[in-house]
Amino acid sequence: MERIAYLGLGIMGSGMASNLLKAGYPVTVWNRSPESCKPLVEQGATQAQTPAQAVQSADVIIYCLSNEQAVEDVVFGQDGILSNVQSGKIAINTSTVHPDTSHQEAAAYAQKNVEFLDAPVFGSKNEAICGGLWIVVGGKQDVFERVKPILQTFTATAHYLGDTGKGACMKLIGNSIVATQIEALGEAMVLATKAGLNPKDVLDVLHVVDFRSPVFDGVGQTLVNRDFTTSFALKHLLKDVNLIARLAQDLNSPMPAAAMVRETIKTAVNQGWGEENATAFIKALELEAGAIVKS
Amino acid sequence: MERIAYLGLGIMGSGMASNLLKAGYPVTVWNRSPESCKPLVEQGATQAQTPAQAVQSADVIIYCLSNEQAVEDVVFGQDGILSNVQSGKIAINTSTVHPDTSHQEAAAYAQKNVEFLDAPVFGSKNEAICGGLWIVVGGKQDVFERVKPILQTFTATAHYLGDTGKGACMKLIGNSIVATQIEALGEAMVLATKAGLNPKDVLDVLHVVDFRSPVFDGVGQTLVNRDFTTSFALKHLLKDVNLIARLAQDLNSPMPAAAMVRETIKTAVNQGWGEENATAFIKALELEAGAIVKS
Amino acid sequence: MERIAYLGLGIMGSGMASNLLKAGYPVTVWNRSPESCKPLVEQGATQAQTPAQAVQSADVIIYCLSNEQAVEDVVFGQDGILSNVQSGKIAINTSTVHPDTSHQEAAAYAQKNVEFLDAPVFGSKNEAICGGLWIVVGGKQDVFERVKPILQTFTATAHYLGDTGKGACMKLIGNSIVATQIEALGEAMVLATKAGLNPKDVLDVLHVVDFRSPVFDGVGQTLVNRDFTTSFALKHLLKDVNLIARLAQDLNSPMPAAAMVRETIKTAVNQGWGEENATAFIKALELEAGAIVKS
Amino acid sequence: MERIAYLGLGIMGSGMASNLLKAGYPVTVWNRSPESCKPLVEQGATQAQTPAQAVQSADVIIYCLSNEQAVEDVVFGQDGILSNVQSGKIAINTSTVHPDTSHQEAAAYAQKNVEFLDAPVFGSKNEAICGGLWIVVGGKQDVFERVKPILQTFTATAHYLGDTGKGACMKLIGNSIVATQIEALGEAMVLATKAGLNPKDVLDVLHVVDFRSPVFDGVGQTLVNRDFTTSFALKHLLKDVNLIARLAQDLNSPMPAAAMVRETIKTAVNQGWGEENATAFIKALELEAGAIVKS
Repeated sequence: MERIAYLGLGIMGSGMASNLLKAGYPVTVWNRSPESCKPLVEQGATQAQTPAQAVQSADVIIYCLSNEQAVEDVVFGQDGILSNVQSGKIAINTSTVHPDTSHQEAAAYAQKNVEFLDAPVFGSKNEAICGGLWIVVGGKQDVFERVKPILQTFTATAHYLGDTGKGACMKLIGNSIVATQIEALGEAMVLATKAGLNPKDVLDVLHVVDFRSPVFDGVGQTLVNRDFTTSFALKHLLKDVNLIARLAQDLNSPMPAAAMVRETIKTAVNQGWGEENATAFIKALELEAGAIVKS
Repeated sequence: MERIAYLGLGIMGSGMASNLLKAGYPVTVWNRSPESCKPLVEQGATQAQTPAQAVQSADVIIYCLSNEQAVEDVVFGQDGILSNVQSGKIAINTSTVHPDTSHQEAAAYAQKNVEFLDAPVFGSKNEAICGGLWIVVGGKQDVFERVKPILQTFTATAHYLGDTGKGACMKLIGNSIVATQIEALGEAMVLATKAGLNPKDVLDVLHVVDFRSPVFDGVGQTLVNRDFTTSFALKHLLKDVNLIARLAQDLNSPMPAAAMVRETIKTAVNQGWGEENATAFIKALELEAGAIVKS
Repeated sequence: MERIAYLGLGIMGSGMASNLLKAGYPVTVWNRSPESCKPLVEQGATQAQTPAQAVQSADVIIYCLSNEQAVEDVVFGQDGILSNVQSGKIAINTSTVHPDTSHQEAAAYAQKNVEFLDAPVFGSKNEAICGGLWIVVGGKQDVFERVKPILQTFTATAHYLGDTGKGACMKLIGNSIVATQIEALGEAMVLATKAGLNPKDVLDVLHVVDFRSPVFDGVGQTLVNRDFTTSFALKHLLKDVNLIARLAQDLNSPMPAAAMVRETIKTAVNQGWGEENATAFIKALELEAGAIVKS
Repeated sequence: MERIAYLGLGIMGSGMASNLLKAGYPVTVWNRSPESCKPLVEQGATQAQTPAQAVQSADVIIYCLSNEQAVEDVVFGQDGILSNVQSGKIAINTSTVHPDTSHQEAAAYAQKNVEFLDAPVFGSKNEAICGGLWIVVGGKQDVFERVKPILQTFTATAHYLGDTGKGACMKLIGNSIVATQIEALGEAMVLATKAGLNPKDVLDVLHVVDFRSPVFDGVGQTLVNRDFTTSFALKHLLKDVNLIARLAQDLNSPMPAAAMVRETIKTAVNQGWGEENATAFIKALELEAGAIVKS
């Protein structure tokens, strides 16, 4: 079995690394805050002190980092992956980044004779824990096929989408859909409340109709319960919609509704809600509607 | 069993009337273009020459009409329902209208001692045929309970939402969500195409992820197949988003993304695509993106 | 000299009536709240008790009313203008209304053999007082020419734009430009403040450059001075942008930026600022920017 | 008199350099395409072969370049300004750039003991020729005061706005206002045309009212005359609105209307109109309105 290095043990990374261990892969882990390594070490992982050390004897290097800056540090920085990665290995970035970053990574790895896949994942905490994520992959197809059994330990489906950057693009495009769905739900729920409808009744309807979506169930519950406990922080969604806007700018592609969603998210973060759950941006619509917004 | 009058035999109305007949209810039908009555008469319905005649001996009067003007004509007009409806009966409007219209109907029926429910339906052709629509109902709860067995002959679920107008509101709110979902999909697909992704691959991803929706499957197929055969005409969706904008105006409720969807739909109708399927408004985004838009 | 009836003595109407008196015209005035007649009576006007009485012996009837409902009451209502207007006279509506209202007025007056002009005015308090308003006129050109000397008593320029409704259209179109200019200024000033620029310095620049406008000077001052004393209430601007949206809907004309301005104004009115000056809607942008908004 | 180096001789730069010569300053000029130097050499300028050579003996170095990449090349590149600038001199960037670029320039110049001002100009061809530009300046105030007489040779007003980057910010903020004004005019003119108003009549009204602006006169004429001869190319305006969006993103500042303007400009550039005059983006609104758009 391939030896795996897993770097970046947030909610998502921890879940993926754990499923690799469960499947029997030998895994070396590293995280900026070393305490996050502990549960995985208890599960059998080896802990490394630096990215460079983590990749020393790994066949496949996987990482899940919070933004482009973290990729810069962990991949390109001092004691970073590139400083010690061995020829013939495979690196996989499961983070949400701009495709330009994917291209920079691919070029740098190619210099070291290392293969690279941009392979972000859809899904959140639950899917990460249960190994039910959906992975979207860019890079060489034969490399994808070689690592597919590894990816399958933590994913429900794995989609090969084309050359470098295609996975990163798909992730951003998907997130733009999610953000717009949440906006649509928020506009609808605010209007429904003003119209005197019972929010729970509205969610019952949205649960069954032919435009239903797990988003409406999940986000709808957090709204009705006023529970914005963070599983994915709003400030990270702002980062994502900013990346989407950058991609749309690069390609000069029309995104009028997504532009509005970005405005709503901006407003929410400006109220100090950036650390709350991403769905908390609906509160910005409530504010605009004149409600005294309860956290 | 209650005697039913069904008025308005478009795609939706014909489906509902047919399911009433299948359930054994005696049904009198009327339609502006009388030829649409034929299949139902063959199924056992009685054909009336005017709305007034249709409601003569009906216990429950149901109608599904294309817009407020048709309601004005069929309910309030010469030889309309109100001209001949009998005290103690029940009238049910399954059309998509503004709640103000529901209130006008309720008030006029109350003068005749007739109960009224605003009860629009979600779903389209298939659900109408199979009796799998989702109905959202405003009016008196005991009246809803009395007619529930009738509604169940053509619906999968029936939701009582409160007093007069609540059904009409819910329908508009739901349609605003659908329209925004289609916009989100369109913006995403145009961006995906510009980014070099294969549209079919994108739809495969959207089919499984945690923000999936039947909308993305259905609309996605029409996009990939360039099949905009009309099941619900774009010009009717424009009418609906205009009604939504009016409701949002009445309640001064924020709808920035929905406002953008309305702009996209306007653009599409202005290109002459109003008679195509509602999903054809995505072509307006393609036009804005600089594509030579194929029908 | 023609005998004038002037109905509706708000800030604008009072100014116009006063200038008619100064020019030597015999003027009969009426206002819903009769106390507003007093200053004009002191200037020589005759006070009427009802619209019907006001128009009894007038050759030219001019009115400036706050919205369509007031037009409905004063023109079409009990003791309204139409109840007593004499054949061969001329009626002029200087209010801001939808062109449909102009058409309804024109049709009703035509039945009485009365000529009608829709003739709203640009400008505010100062221009009303000084007789420096700008009037935009729809109706028959020869009627316009006949009353031009009268209009010139309270206007700097008088523009004949075509048949009935053209004046009303022009007014709405102009107001959409003003509202978007204020939005543009507001977005700019909020960004400038966040960027650390001194608002007064920004206004100094805007005062001279080739995109300068009296709007930026006037609104800019109210912003810097935090003086939102009402000369034209924000709730009336909301009414106007709603009329503009209705006109754009009627003609299916694209108005994406104006749609956003409407959202900002909605937000401001929802915060309870509807009675403040129209320019106060910039505070909604400040709120969205995360500022604690001072009144 | 100070010896001046002027780099970048487009429409704007040529005008500024010419006015410096007229005022009697000794000027060395450089341009990427050397032929643009000819008229200025005829006026008395010395021509340099490289930026490095141009700044060799200059006391004040002024440059006007088309975008950040040109700044990168001319300032930071091989044979660029920084490679040969002398201690104690002053560099002035009159280009439209992001304030981050200003900060990078200031830092690099500081290493060479050179003072730096970010000092973009408002105005276009005519103002450049006549010396009537409006300049907005960031940097040290005493440096601004020292070069003020130089700046006054080509400007009508010079505004000191604060430390490094403040000039760049002000320029972007101003351009966002212009772009939104053009959008407002475009939405208004399209609506006016659909409403049956004569565009020339509309411009006559806009010329006088209290929200008039030179923008409406100038852009209005190009619209009515269908003359989109380039004085400032639309593709450059797209660059500017993208810079504005980046600044708004950096500061998380709300810009809903500006976001819509960006969408309209995108649409226009996607139709192949990027080389036409900036005002040509109104044609995108005409396209959305369903008009067959004439160039």
